Parts: sequence; C-alpha cells; structure tokens
Amino acid sequence: MKIRELYQKNNTKILFLVADGLGGIPHPDFGNKTELEYAKTPNLDKLAPQSVLGLTIPVEYGITPGSGPAHFSLFGYNPEEVEIGRGALEAYGIGYIMSDDELAIRANFCTITPDRVVTDRRAGRIETEEMKRIVNKLSENIKGIENYKVTFLPGKEHRFVIILKGPRLHDQISDTDPQKEGSKLLEARGHEKEAEKTAGVINQLVDKILEVLKDEPRANGVLLRGYSLKPKVESFEERTGMKALSLANYPMYKGITRILGMDTPDVGETFADLVRYLKEHIANYDFVYLHYKYTDKAGEDGDFLKKVKYIEELDSYLPEILSVNPDVLVITGDHSTPSLLKSHSWHPNPLLVYSKYMGFDGIERFTERNCAKGSLGIMYAYHLLPIAMAAGLKLKKWGA
Amino acid sequence: MKIRELYQKNNTKILFLVADGLGGIPHPDFGNKTELEYAKTPNLDKLAPQSVLGLTIPVEYGITPGSGPAHFSLFGYNPEEVEIGRGALEAYGIGYIMSDDELAIRANFCTITPDRVVTDRRAGRIETEEMKRIVNKLSENIKGIENYKVTFLPGKEHRFVIILKGPRLHDQISDTDPQKEGSKLLEARGHEKEAEKTAGVINQLVDKILEVLKDEPRANGVLLRGYSLKPKVESFEERTGMKALSLANYPMYKGITRILGMDTPDVGETFADLVRYLKEHIANYDFVYLHYKYTDKAGEDGDFLKKVKYIEELDSYLPEILSVNPDVLVITGDHSTPSLLKSHSWHPNPLLVYSKYMGFDGIERFTERNCAKGSLGIMYAYHLLPIAMAAGLKLKKWGA
Repeated sequence: MKIRELYQKNNTKILFLVADGLGGIPHPDFGNKTELEYAKTPNLDKLAPQSVLGLTIPVEYGITPGSGPAHFSLFGYNPEEVEIGRGALEAYGIGYIMSDDELAIRANFCTITPDRVVTDRRAGRIETEEMKRIVNKLSENIKGIENYKVTFLPGKEHRFVIILKGPRLHDQISDTDPQKEGSKLLEARGHEKEAEKTAGVINQLVDKILEVLKDEPRANGVLLRGYSLKPKVESFEERTGMKALSLANYPMYKGITRILGMDTPDVGETFADLVRYLKEHIANYDFVYLHYKYTDKAGEDGDFLKKVKYIEELDSYLPEILSVNPDVLVITGDHSTPSLLKSHSWHPNPLLVYSKYMGFDGIERFTERNCAKGSLGIMYAYHLLPIAMAAGLKLKKWGA
Repeated sequence: MKIRELYQKNNTKILFLVADGLGGIPHPDFGNKTELEYAKTPNLDKLAPQSVLGLTIPVEYGITPGSGPAHFSLFGYNPEEVEIGRGALEAYGIGYIMSDDELAIRANFCTITPDRVVTDRRAGRIETEEMKRIVNKLSENIKGIENYKVTFLPGKEHRFVIILKGPRLHDQISDTDPQKEGSKLLEARGHEKEAEKTAGVINQLVDKILEVLKDEPRANGVLLRGYSLKPKVESFEERTGMKALSLANYPMYKGITRILGMDTPDVGETFADLVRYLKEHIANYDFVYLHYKYTDKAGEDGDFLKKVKYIEELDSYLPEILSVNPDVLVITGDHSTPSLLKSHSWHPNPLLVYSKYMGFDGIERFTERNCAKGSLGIMYAYHLLPIAMAAGLKLKKWGA
C-alpha cells in the first residue's frame, strides 16, 4: 500500500533525533560495556522507561551500510530500492541542486608523471584551501566543452565535484581512476553505445584540466568516478505527505535530505545551532530530522571515551529538545559505529520511541542490550517511519 | 512454497479464538495499564504460562487495518494480495453468496429534493425496520433492467445492497454518491470503455428507484458506491487443505469467511450460541474460527472498563472452550482497539498459542507487554496459520 494515500494532515510533530553511529558493542577495556552503557545519561534514563524500545536493521542482516543507505532507511525508503550515484550525493552534499540535463562527477586531485602515471592518488592530501585555489583556477580557465557547460565545485581536501550540463548526458561510463598508484590514468569509456558521446566529452575535459594543472607541483592530475545523473527518487513529501525539515551540520546529510526535497537550511556549524533552529521552526513542519554527527566520528576514531563524552553531551541537550514537545520523539542511530571496530558496523541501531500513543516498556536505560528486550522488537529501519506516523495519528485506517 | 502441497490430513483440531480489537495500550486513568493488564482473568492466567506468546502485525508496521484485511491475515492470506470490494463484503456479510455473473453494489437511502440535490446522506438514519419496508417495496416494483436481474437485500439502518445479474457486468464505475450534502446525485460513469454498458444500466436503475421512492418522506433517494464483482480469492480449503468452520455473530465476519468458502452457519445472536455450536460440531472440522466481537465494540466506544469487563467475560468462557480439547488453541485479536484511541490501531496483536508441541514460555499473564517478551517474537499475522498447522502436525517436511 502507499503511505501517501493513508496520510491525514494534522498538527502533530514527529522529531527524529539521529545520533550518527550511536550503537556500539561491549568493549573489553571498559568493563565490557558499550558506549551507551558506560555513559552517564540522566535525561535519557528518565525518558527510557516512559518509551518503547527496539532495534532496527538499517539495510539487511549482517550488512554494514554507508550513511546514504542508512539514512534512506530511516526516512522510510527501502535502501535497496533507492539508487543514487556518489557524484550526485557529493554534489547535493555541498549544496548544489542538480537539474535534469546535468551529470555530477566525483573528482580527486592526484599527482601524475608527464606520461600520466599516477604517483599519488590524493595529491598528498592537499589542504582544503589549496584545493579551493586550484578549483578556482579550473573554473577560470574551463567554461565548457563543445556545447556542454562545465562547473567545478570545491569539496574537502583533495576532493571536488564537476557538473557537466548539456544534451543527452549519460552515466554509464567507466572511471578514469586506475585505483592504484604506478598505473596510468584510464580513458573514460561508455558502458553502452549511448554513453560514448558523454565519455568523449569527459576525455576532452580531462585533457583540458591536465593542461591547466600542468604547472601545479602536486595537484597536477585528476581522477574521475561516480558519474551520476539527477537522482530519480520520490520526494519525502510526495511519499509521506509530510512537510519535513532537516537539521544537519555536515554536507553529506544535507545532500541526502536535499535529494529528498526536505527543507534543508544551512543553519550553523554546531549542534546548538541546530537545536536553536528546531525550537524556532518546528511549528511549520510535520516532521523534523535532527542530526548529531559526533558519536560517529568518535566511533570511527576508535575513541571509546570520546564517544561516551559525546553521548553525554547529547544527553545534556535532551531537556532543551524535549521543550519543543514533539508528539512523537524517536531517538536512534543511522547505523552503529562501535569504537572497538573503528568503523560503521552491521549491528542494529538502538531505538527509542516516546509518544503518548505508543505505550511504554518500563525498561530502565536506553542501551543496545535493553533495546533488544523492548516491545518494538527487531525490525528493518524503514518500517520505523510508518510507526512514527501512526503514533502521530497521521495515518488513516487501511481497508474496511 | 504452497502450504496446500505440504498438507497432511489428520484428526487434530485447530481453534482460533479471535477477540476482536483485543490489544490495547496503557491508559493513564487506569494505573497506566492496558485492558488486558487491568482485567481479572484467572483462566487465561492459568493458560498463559503453559503457552507460547508473541505479537502479530496484521498488515504492515504502523498500519491500522480494517477488519477485512486484518482477518485475511489471520487466515494466512497476505492482505495486500487480497482485493475484495466493499459491495461484495457487504453482500456476503448479509448472507448472500455471489455468482460469477453478478455485481454487488452498496446502497444507502438518502433524502433528496425534486431536482436530486442530496439534503441528508443517511435519510435521517432511518430504522432498520423502516429500511426493510422500503427495500420490500423496491423488490416488488423492480425486477430487472433490460436483461439484467435486480435483487435488493436489506442491511442495517439506511444501508442495503443491490445485486445486478446479467452478461458482461463491470465494476470500474464511478459512485453516484456526491459525498456531501447540498450536491446533486451523480451519474454513474464507466472508468473504462467496457464499463459504460454497466454504468448505463445502473443509471436506468437509479431512475426506476427514484420513481418508486418518490412519495417516501425521508428515504426518497439512493446513493450507490462500492461496486464489486465476485471476489477472486482462493478458498481457505483450496489454500490450506483444511475443512473450516466459522462461528461469528456479526455479518461482516460471516461475509469474510463465506468469501473464503468456510462453513459459516447462522448460529445465533450470542457468544454462548457460538460456543454451544463449537462443542457440537468441532468434530467435523480441522479448523474452527470463533469470533468474539465485544472487546472491539467497547474499545471503539473508548470505554476502558467495558472492554475490561468483556475480556473478563471471555475469560469465563475459557473452561468451556477448552473442554473441546483443541490440539492447537490460538487466542489473539484481529487488530488492536485501544480504548484510549477509541478506534482500531496499528499496535501489534497479543498472541497466545497453546499446544502440546509448541513448548511454553512460562510467562505469567497474557498481556501485550508480556507477549512482547514471548518466544514467538513479533511477526506478520499471516505467518501464524502455518505455525498453527505445524503444531497440529498437519504439515509435512519441505524438501529432502
């Protein structure tokens, strides 16, 4: 069935507080506790017994997701049915909204020899400021290829994005990145006949870029991959009926919610900025996504105590967040990032839903192991959104 | 795989005791307990620890189902794959079994002005007896249109059903109900070319009906909607192999089980009548569906204590029901109807399965929150039937 057809507009507010990489696994160096178990979280401890708990699987059993699929699942999309190229994700992430006649390409600066052998795939990880200078130089010198317009967008460190705009662009094209140092740059090739024209334009573009970069000491080459046309994804509002606000500091997450057509303002650099914006603007929305990045970063660093500290910091924001009186408050992660693994993982996300019509489990603390005992059970993350909508009384009965 | 191909006939008896709308959520005015938690249920309390518990999702996460889809799921059909029009459901509900060349139409008496503007969509909610009188009048005066036979079937209050019988009838036809008062009756129109003939017959029928009703003070108009051909659903016996008895007092539920080809006798007006019939006839069946409506009614009324009382009444029937010694006894709801919401809801159904070969959880009481801890976990309701059949040793091994 289509959720949209069951949607009924009302004034309830659904708030998804997503602590990135929240879930963990017990760490032998810290009393065999997880970060959530180890952290002092007086506010979460008060909320947990009044909530229902559960665990969500972002994509599939045993599958460790990237942030993209993990977030699509949170927003109610089965991530296996959503296809968005990395190029588009990067473009949206840095605030660029694509149109139908554009192709987004992920680009890295690299270092090459005069005969195009790659000697450093990341150009010595040049600084962001340096990358911006060189991207400016490209922008000044290259405006187009044939009747295709070219736009260069700076990213971070050695990464940037190229937007090609023109007729009949195609995305089934091979990377120019040989994937290892000591190999020559590859020519772009069309995987299908219709893609050959675009591949030819890209090869001309690479030649022009190398010409402009020839005097750069390190960033004298470019690697292209992740070609993508404008993603064809049903917007969140088309799909659910809800008007949605996305509050995130980091480009990747803004990119995802912009692709989904959520209002995604550039609010500020800190979580406090997001919370302030939340308080001022939640009245205008049915659904708010509030992203807290720091738990994932600490997990990726393998820094157990730092992740604990960030969980405690998040806990300290809880009274302020609760002050907006959401009718449905969901607290969860997008994927787990256990410090012990220093990376994203396949472990299900701890999940808490606090809402008048959800009942409550009376379980004492919000931890991974307690969530495994919660009444929501274990479910795919993309089943969560309809539950939240139901708790907000936003869904009509299905069938007579 | 097909359950039917694994079926092996034996003498075990499966009994589904379905307390309509059984599940609830904690109510703040009653010690934050659910109706099941609040009720005194000595017989269920004795049964629960010897049973396995779980929760079932009728249709999908977060989706509140109507009784139709909720029951199909109980009977092992994925309700998203079953399509049954309201007209057919109503016709079956009042005991009419459709044939292939018939179209069922939901009809309401209404009040109209001489130029067909609807002034009361329910004709002042006329009494059932009054409706029956007018339906009789229609039956006497209208036997057919062209070569189509017309049958009028009384329902309840202002509602009745019309059966058209004849060649090439079609169900893709627009309602004549304008949905609001102050608007004129609509003409029926075919949504596709093949439906235009049927639409024309229906418009002629409306003209004839209005002619017959012209002197009625209130019920001088008719609204038509929910046109449906005979539903194409595999019967329960074709699907499972089991011979099934349906025991229900209310038309809707009889309609559903008649569509599925279950023996659905008109047994009496009370639950006691159903239980008596059960005791006398279970020997002839593999599967019995026993429906208890009152929990849902009380939930819909928002009457917590009345729902508690009906749960307690159901509990008091348990010894008598157990006296038939079912090999597999399932006690569950079709959907939840929390008093707090005064309506059907999306909350999973509490589920108890009592059977020699199911093991037991040793959990003390049969409540929603205890079911969340049960060994059956949370599952789609349509997965329950094969489990019950397995517990009745009615399913052979699949694969070598």
